[in-house]
Amino acid sequence: MNIGIIGLGLIGGSLGWDLRVQGFRVLGVSRREETCQQALALGIVDRASMDLSLLRDADFVFLCTPLSVIVSTFKSLISYLSPDVIVTDVGSVKTSIVRELSSLWPHFVGGHPMAGSEYQGLDGAQRDLFVGRPYVITPLPTTSETTVTKVRDLAQRLGATVYQCSPEEHDRAVAWISHLPVMVSASLISACLQENHPEIRRFAELFASSGFRDTSRVGGGNPELGVMMARFNREELLRTLGDYRQQLDQLITDIEQENWLSLEEKLTATHHARKKFVK
Amino acid sequence: MNIGIIGLGLIGGSLGWDLRVQGFRVLGVSRREETCQQALALGIVDRASMDLSLLRDADFVFLCTPLSVIVSTFKSLISYLSPDVIVTDVGSVKTSIVRELSSLWPHFVGGHPMAGSEYQGLDGAQRDLFVGRPYVITPLPTTSETTVTKVRDLAQRLGATVYQCSPEEHDRAVAWISHLPVMVSASLISACLQENHPEIRRFAELFASSGFRDTSRVGGGNPELGVMMARFNREELLRTLGDYRQQLDQLITDIEQENWLSLEEKLTATHHARKKFVK
Repeated sequence: MNIGIIGLGLIGGSLGWDLRVQGFRVLGVSRREETCQQALALGIVDRASMDLSLLRDADFVFLCTPLSVIVSTFKSLISYLSPDVIVTDVGSVKTSIVRELSSLWPHFVGGHPMAGSEYQGLDGAQRDLFVGRPYVITPLPTTSETTVTKVRDLAQRLGATVYQCSPEEHDRAVAWISHLPVMVSASLISACLQENHPEIRRFAELFASSGFRDTSRVGGGNPELGVMMARFNREELLRTLGDYRQQLDQLITDIEQENWLSLEEKLTATHHARKKFVK
Repeated sequence: MNIGIIGLGLIGGSLGWDLRVQGFRVLGVSRREETCQQALALGIVDRASMDLSLLRDADFVFLCTPLSVIVSTFKSLISYLSPDVIVTDVGSVKTSIVRELSSLWPHFVGGHPMAGSEYQGLDGAQRDLFVGRPYVITPLPTTSETTVTKVRDLAQRLGATVYQCSPEEHDRAVAWISHLPVMVSASLISACLQENHPEIRRFAELFASSGFRDTSRVGGGNPELGVMMARFNREELLRTLGDYRQQLDQLITDIEQENWLSLEEKLTATHHARKKFVK
C-alpha cells in the first residue's frame, strides 16, 4: 500500500517513519525542497517531492499541514487522486475541517493524533511518537464503515490508543484540556510582565522554579499554533474561557473575603479531580 | 556544631540528611514519635525527640514546620535556647514571619529554600534536594552581618544558589512565580469540572495529555499549602490576581473580536518572555 503524507513536520515526519518501517511505501510532499531531501536522507519517505502529483499512486493520504491550509491543500490535491483513496488529516480542531473535506471527498475521516514534543518541524520527528497516546478519529454518521476501519487500523498500527467521537465532541473536549490551558498559561506570563518594579521582576525571574516552568509551558509555546486553536475552535474556547473566568473570580472573592474554608474546599476538589485527567 | 531542625518533613528531612553527611550533629524534633523513629532509622538525624528541650544544645536552629505554626513553635522553643543561637525558618512567605520572629530573637534571619518535589513529608526527603536551587535569605537592615553570614554559609554548603532581598521583595516576587500559578492552575481544573455533559467530560479526561498535566500540576497540589500561601501573602497575591484577570480579559476580547493579529502579538511576547523565567 502506498501512503501519501503532505506536510513533513513533526507529525507527518513521525508518521512516515513508523509506517515505512512497517513496510508501507511512503510518498512525502513538502513545500520546501530542503525538507524533501532531509526526509529522504533520514529514510522517512521512499519518495519526496514539492509536487502534489507525486500522490497519484497513493492509496491512503495523511494531510499533515498546518490547520489553516488543510482545506486549500486538499483542493489542490483532489485532481490527482483516484476515487477510492482514503484521506485523513491530523489537525487539532475538527468540526470545520471535517465539514468541508467530507463534502469534497466521501472517503475522508478526520483524525487527531494527540502526540507532540517541544520540538517543531522534521527535526523533531521521531519513531514511536504515537505509542500509547490518544488518537481520536471523528467520522460522520454518513462515513462508510470500511473507510473508518482502515483509518482506525493504521492508527492502531502506530501503537496509539484510538478513540472515536463526533467532530463537535472532539472540539469541545479539547477546548478544555488543550486550548484553554494555552490561554490560561499565556495570561500568566503576560501578567508577570506587568510587574513594573525592575528589581522585583529580576527576583521573580531568578526565583522561578518548576511550578512556574510547568504552568507557563504551553503559554510560551508556538504563537501561530495558539492563534490557529483560537481561530478554528473559537466558539468552544470562548465558552471554556467564560467558565474559567467565573471560577477565577470565585477564588479571588474567597481570598478577598478571607474565606479560607471555601478556598480549602476548592483546592481539595481540584486536588482530587486532577487525578481523573492525569493518569 | 549542633544543628536543630523542628519539623521533619520534606524540607526539614532533606536539610538534616545533607547537613549530617557534612559532619554536623543534627537534632530533630517532630510532633510524631513515628517520624522521630523513621528519621533515626534513615540516618537523617543524630537524635530525635517530640520534646523541644532536645534543642538545648543547638547552636543553629531551622524552623521547618508549616507556615501557620512557625511563630507559635518558636515561642515554645525560646526558653530552651542559649542567647547566641542563630535561628532561621524555611517558610514560603516571609514578611509577617520575619517581623514577628525578629522582634523575639535578634539572631533570626528568614530563609526560603525554593526546592520541592511532588512528595510530601519525610518519605519525600532526599539528598541534594537544594543543589543548584535558589535559596533566598531575607535579613532586616538591623540583622548583624555575622548572623547573616552564618545562615548564608549553611545554605551554600547545601549547594544552593543564595539570593538576598528584603522580606517584602521576596513576597512580591514569589506571588508572581509561585503563588499566582497555583491559583491560575487550580481555576483551570475547577473550570473543567463545570462541563456538565458527561460524555464530553469523559473525552476530556481521556484526551488530557502533557499540556494539561503540566498546566494543572500546581493547582492539583497540597490544598493546605495553597491556603497558607493565600493567607500569608494575601495582599501581594490579590495584586497579581488582579493583573492576571486583566490580561485574561484582554485575551478573551481578542478572541471575541477575532483580532488575530493582537492575539498573535501577545502569544509571541509570552513565547519570548518565558525564556527569562525558565533557564
